[in-house]
Amino acid sequence: MTLLLRDVVDVLERLYPPRTAQSWDQVGLVTGDPAQPVERILLALDPTLDVIDEARSTGVDLLITHHPLLMRGIHSVATTTAKGASVTGLVVADIALYVAHTNADVAQSGVSEALAAAAGLTDTRPLSLVEEQPLGRVGRLASPMTLGSFAAALYAALPAAAAGLRVSGPADATVETVAVLGGAGDDQFEAVRASGADVYVTADLRHHPALEAREESRGGPPYLVDAGHWSSEAVWLPTLRDALTSALRVDIDISTVRTDPWTFTVGATPAGGMP
Amino acid sequence: MTLLLRDVVDVLERLYPPRTAQSWDQVGLVTGDPAQPVERILLALDPTLDVIDEARSTGVDLLITHHPLLMRGIHSVATTTAKGASVTGLVVADIALYVAHTNADVAQSGVSEALAAAAGLTDTRPLSLVEEQPLGRVGRLASPMTLGSFAAALYAALPAAAAGLRVSGPADATVETVAVLGGAGDDQFEAVRASGADVYVTADLRHHPALEAREESRGGPPYLVDAGHWSSEAVWLPTLRDALTSALRVDIDISTVRTDPWTFTVGATPAGGMP
Amino acid sequence: MTLLLRDVVDVLERLYPPRTAQSWDQVGLVTGDPAQPVERILLALDPTLDVIDEARSTGVDLLITHHPLLMRGIHSVATTTAKGASVTGLVVADIALYVAHTNADVAQSGVSEALAAAAGLTDTRPLSLVEEQPLGRVGRLASPMTLGSFAAALYAALPAAAAGLRVSGPADATVETVAVLGGAGDDQFEAVRASGADVYVTADLRHHPALEAREESRGGPPYLVDAGHWSSEAVWLPTLRDALTSALRVDIDISTVRTDPWTFTVGATPAGGMP
Amino acid sequence: MTLLLRDVVDVLERLYPPRTAQSWDQVGLVTGDPAQPVERILLALDPTLDVIDEARSTGVDLLITHHPLLMRGIHSVATTTAKGASVTGLVVADIALYVAHTNADVAQSGVSEALAAAAGLTDTRPLSLVEEQPLGRVGRLASPMTLGSFAAALYAALPAAAAGLRVSGPADATVETVAVLGGAGDDQFEAVRASGADVYVTADLRHHPALEAREESRGGPPYLVDAGHWSSEAVWLPTLRDALTSALRVDIDISTVRTDPWTFTVGATPAGGMP
Amino acid sequence: MTLLLRDVVDVLERLYPPRTAQSWDQVGLVTGDPAQPVERILLALDPTLDVIDEARSTGVDLLITHHPLLMRGIHSVATTTAKGASVTGLVVADIALYVAHTNADVAQSGVSEALAAAAGLTDTRPLSLVEEQPLGRVGRLASPMTLGSFAAALYAALPAAAAGLRVSGPADATVETVAVLGGAGDDQFEAVRASGADVYVTADLRHHPALEAREESRGGPPYLVDAGHWSSEAVWLPTLRDALTSALRVDIDISTVRTDPWTFTVGATPAGGMP
Amino acid sequence: MTLLLRDVVDVLERLYPPRTAQSWDQVGLVTGDPAQPVERILLALDPTLDVIDEARSTGVDLLITHHPLLMRGIHSVATTTAKGASVTGLVVADIALYVAHTNADVAQSGVSEALAAAAGLTDTRPLSLVEEQPLGRVGRLASPMTLGSFAAALYAALPAAAAGLRVSGPADATVETVAVLGGAGDDQFEAVRASGADVYVTADLRHHPALEAREESRGGPPYLVDAGHWSSEAVWLPTLRDALTSALRVDIDISTVRTDPWTFTVGATPAGGMP
Repeated sequence: MTLLLRDVVDVLERLYPPRTAQSWDQVGLVTGDPAQPVERILLALDPTLDVIDEARSTGVDLLITHHPLLMRGIHSVATTTAKGASVTGLVVADIALYVAHTNADVAQSGVSEALAAAAGLTDTRPLSLVEEQPLGRVGRLASPMTLGSFAAALYAALPAAAAGLRVSGPADATVETVAVLGGAGDDQFEAVRASGADVYVTADLRHHPALEAREESRGGPPYLVDAGHWSSEAVWLPTLRDALTSALRVDIDISTVRTDPWTFTVGATPAGGMP
Repeated sequence: MTLLLRDVVDVLERLYPPRTAQSWDQVGLVTGDPAQPVERILLALDPTLDVIDEARSTGVDLLITHHPLLMRGIHSVATTTAKGASVTGLVVADIALYVAHTNADVAQSGVSEALAAAAGLTDTRPLSLVEEQPLGRVGRLASPMTLGSFAAALYAALPAAAAGLRVSGPADATVETVAVLGGAGDDQFEAVRASGADVYVTADLRHHPALEAREESRGGPPYLVDAGHWSSEAVWLPTLRDALTSALRVDIDISTVRTDPWTFTVGATPAGGMP
Repeated sequence: MTLLLRDVVDVLERLYPPRTAQSWDQVGLVTGDPAQPVERILLALDPTLDVIDEARSTGVDLLITHHPLLMRGIHSVATTTAKGASVTGLVVADIALYVAHTNADVAQSGVSEALAAAAGLTDTRPLSLVEEQPLGRVGRLASPMTLGSFAAALYAALPAAAAGLRVSGPADATVETVAVLGGAGDDQFEAVRASGADVYVTADLRHHPALEAREESRGGPPYLVDAGHWSSEAVWLPTLRDALTSALRVDIDISTVRTDPWTFTVGATPAGGMP
Repeated sequence: MTLLLRDVVDVLERLYPPRTAQSWDQVGLVTGDPAQPVERILLALDPTLDVIDEARSTGVDLLITHHPLLMRGIHSVATTTAKGASVTGLVVADIALYVAHTNADVAQSGVSEALAAAAGLTDTRPLSLVEEQPLGRVGRLASPMTLGSFAAALYAALPAAAAGLRVSGPADATVETVAVLGGAGDDQFEAVRASGADVYVTADLRHHPALEAREESRGGPPYLVDAGHWSSEAVWLPTLRDALTSALRVDIDISTVRTDPWTFTVGATPAGGMP
Repeated sequence: MTLLLRDVVDVLERLYPPRTAQSWDQVGLVTGDPAQPVERILLALDPTLDVIDEARSTGVDLLITHHPLLMRGIHSVATTTAKGASVTGLVVADIALYVAHTNADVAQSGVSEALAAAAGLTDTRPLSLVEEQPLGRVGRLASPMTLGSFAAALYAALPAAAAGLRVSGPADATVETVAVLGGAGDDQFEAVRASGADVYVTADLRHHPALEAREESRGGPPYLVDAGHWSSEAVWLPTLRDALTSALRVDIDISTVRTDPWTFTVGATPAGGMP
Repeated sequence: MTLLLRDVVDVLERLYPPRTAQSWDQVGLVTGDPAQPVERILLALDPTLDVIDEARSTGVDLLITHHPLLMRGIHSVATTTAKGASVTGLVVADIALYVAHTNADVAQSGVSEALAAAAGLTDTRPLSLVEEQPLGRVGRLASPMTLGSFAAALYAALPAAAAGLRVSGPADATVETVAVLGGAGDDQFEAVRASGADVYVTADLRHHPALEAREESRGGPPYLVDAGHWSSEAVWLPTLRDALTSALRVDIDISTVRTDPWTFTVGATPAGGMP
């Protein structure tokens, strides 16, 4: 019997109920018809033009991404903009696009849990409640370790991207309690301090919020690890694949495209290298 | 004759007129009395607690920074917050603090010009006009070069920080026209595309704006270089020192504290290292 | 030589410059690629699903409508909504959609002029200036006539729709100066009174604004004619066809679909029929 | 014993409690003194100048209307505006004005119930809850009938106005479940679709909302009947008269003025008449 | 020949053009019909119920006040509120009400000029420009005098009210340059300081703004005189009477009602009386 | 054992919990370090420059005031503004400043209770609930008295200021139920009328709100007493001193500076003196 798009959507919405998404978010079906058949599914963090090309060239029927294609409403899908070209590319190739974003962040089979697992945490609890949903996680390492070792282990556990991990704090400081929040987390420093975490793993940390957080800590914990937006969230894609595989008889692949925008770095300093 | 704070302020406001600051900005005198004498001046990008300690221990009378200490209004200077402790530390030690921020960005002896010079640009023109002030610069390299070589040369010309430079684009692509904007510049992509730049040097580039800019460029130019917020602006401090030295007989030093929040990186990939 | 979409857009934007559209409006290309060839063009007031079906079945490459398909921004083009199904229908069939809305209202070859001509007006001048564009027209009939005769003549000159024309005022009142504004015009009563018009032809007049306008007139002029939104604007489509025909060698048809939502009326009273 | 205005107000506020009005509404006493005697009451949908003249010429002490005279706050009652002339006319003639608007819409003896009864509905339930009040009604016809027959029967049951009823849908479609909402109802289409209604009776339907509702229905139900703002609400006046008559010993008349703004139509098409 | 209300309005609008009123203000005709005859005019600062009673009992046709009756829009003129009772009282007695407020403040024959004259100022210039109108006045005394003597002379020149004048500053300080602004002026302290005034005469000075202004002055000038809202503006009524008398043949009286709300004081301290 | 600032803060926050302050308020520690010792405390209504001078000259460690120094956020503490000079003066002299404002208004040992006691009230209850806190008090006098006598007794019970008390109402009217609200209370007239009070004691009453309240009362009760912002709140300082004395072994003084801005009055009229 042919699997229809609406059947896959039903499975996705049981795993990641749309009502658990933040009020400002845009989740759910972006292109496609619930009655169309689905034989191949591709998973990616972002629905970029390269990912869409990959989907077209591999005969994919459904693309599932974490990041919304149309976070801001659009008034045109003409190919003169990248967003328009993306929508047109999907529609012309009959590829449905489904987005699970903040509803996937908070779920049991979600991004925060996958990141916490990659960080080696146990006894996890929510970092904070936002719109009544559990955002981020706080947990403990199996045993205390240095910040340098923790960062190295985390790097090894995440999909690698060009910018690597940035760390703020002394490499030889000891850490045990860890807060994690995939993606951009520089509005949660107050919750992190309240949590008692020794280190906070998140991404997209800009100069001013990061520096203010370090000032508020007066040089001590919580230290910071910017694990990269893509790395800290793409770690979830295998979890998603497994959850879907156990519920659906269909081909499911993770995109081979790394949608992190960075290609290479110059002069990044390893632990111990900077005076 | 003793130099007074008001005399130094007069010189600063000729170089960086407060009326050229953006309307949302907070520039000018933050602590101090215009009638107090000034014998030693310290320059820094951020008025952090470590910088203030350095100023206290070296007998500084006036600290001049690029970033405002009190961008958001405060209702207390009690030492229970880092901002309060900073204000208290300055006032107790009789250290005046003066801020030249967006007015220093746009000036002839300003941040954008210093960054453009470090990037090796000639024939510079404003990147865009915001509130009638010339934000950022666009110029040309002496001759075309590869993106990899350009990034390496820029890294060598800027004060070094732990995260190094992040580059989006092929290392062997050729670049000649360059747009620069010190600090956080991810709201100027449209001006960059309109400028015809091959590469855009700025900082604090987050995943979504950077990726959308790359998508809009369909993989081609303008490429991106995130040079680090601190590196891309601290490059201006020698210019500031020289401009003040030529106008005032007073000791002027650049802070030895690197106020970039990052200490080290793990796994950052040099050009050619990432598949 | 093949005509490309970008060539047609050039002609349209000379006739109806996008900068003359109101700031809240959404005009221009909604679907399509500027490089695609155009051999058949269809004109319609609204891009409804029936109009899109007509375009698909008649091999149309470009649909030009007055009303925007996506006045409110959308976050999905899935076929679960009518807007999504419309976009999908256009994109799948490679049909470009171009919208000329308030920029077409104000132009010389525009909606207001077409409606003024249908009403038999001469010596037309703008009814009001909104965002510096001439909205609506005021002109004079060749000679004074009764309100009843004027309404009958106007009905005969407009494309017919099921609701006909609604008139507020005595059928035997004399009118000579006439204000017209195609589409919804119940926010222009003050300009109409200031214009000295004897009667105001527009559409979508709701109870409260219409009654308040009649109260302000104390039973006298300006009287009101609600000519129907579709009828008062579809009268422009032949003008548009003629303007394009003179500039482009391409097949151009006016849609045979009447996109007025009304099918029939019950009990509408002709002049003289209501006590 | 003389009946005082405050006694009548007490009865009205038991029937239509002011706390059940929408938060944006303006209901209650508009002119008059609670201590003035009331011997004659006039009921009308709108407090127009003609209705006020009728009240003055027939010695009325209290005018009760559905629509507020002063929905927007006023800063002057000079006779230079129609609103000012209306207030002045009432005050000079010692006529109290009382308004029961959205509180009358939702009540048991209210507008929606009166319209539902005129439509022949049984088993009525609220169409939607707005600010916790039951807006509109959904019910069933005694037996299924064609849309054409339903519209004809409804027309016969409502006070007649010049524009008659406008219908969107095929005259021979079958309808059984009916949603009704007196006055302007084009913001309730979503509730109507959710209700399972075959047809929606309301008024003041403008082109864009009506067309979008029809598109969303893909040509099928719910069909639309625009019954006219005045007709769809004036049907309630006899209910109001009866409710007051049973509570008060006083002369109560329904105004002979039809406050619908339209006088006649041209070219309205009966069922079957439009291709 | 009978004088009509519209003739009086014409004279008033030449003296105090409505376009010179602040954008938030509500000036002009509040009750009355432009065609009604005017034989007696009453002038008052506020249209209170007592003033309206005086107008009724003395056969006044037109009441002219400085303060608006309906600054906030109203939705009812029922007598259950004071505003409603006021409107009803005026309309029932056929008394027109005309308001000249901020347009009267700024005029040559206006409130600020009358207050400046009472304060004995010469060489007056505007205190500040607000919405391009000259608010308040700054001028010089014929010769320097003590703050105590100035306050005593001002008190003698103004209509007396129960609270007298409040003064902030030493009675023996010398003042020569004076800023005045009738009514509530505690948002103009910055303009006063910029004007170089030694003392600022205004009214309705609350604790916090007054104390902050005194702090900013560090105990020195500009000193403050709170002359009372009523006293500082009622001083204009004779100017108004004279201006109207020279233009119109009609009886004009100034109300005998003091509309200052205060009846008496306890314990107010004369100069020298407070330690 | 040395008393530390944090110990005093603990006592203050038990007496006046910060969570009971209004959401817009700014309470708590403004300058100082929780670990600094406290031997002398000074209490004042406002932290003016004179009060700070008194604190410095008397060796005070902690100043406690009712009014916030920094109600609006500041971006500079340079001495060029009075606020900056105040903060600098406190910090340089190591004087902590603590503010208890609206949390002190509502408390059992708070401002409203102190004012009610000074007014001689018993059986007090809250005047209104604002953000769930009891604002103001309503109570009864031991026996009915004239408004004149009540005002005289209240004046005698409050700290004296130059402007004395202003009263609106006949001196011989009888009052028994009294509403009180220290500081600016002209937004609570509706609650006062609902409370059945014969007279309302508050401060900072401006012309328009006071006059509108008197109009709404039609000349009768509730009458008004403007007791002066400073007098009506400084009455609380002894209560504060006693509460702290019973909890802490430390020197506590009430400031000798009267921070009311007014120095003297001219022409204030005692009861019976104004016609």
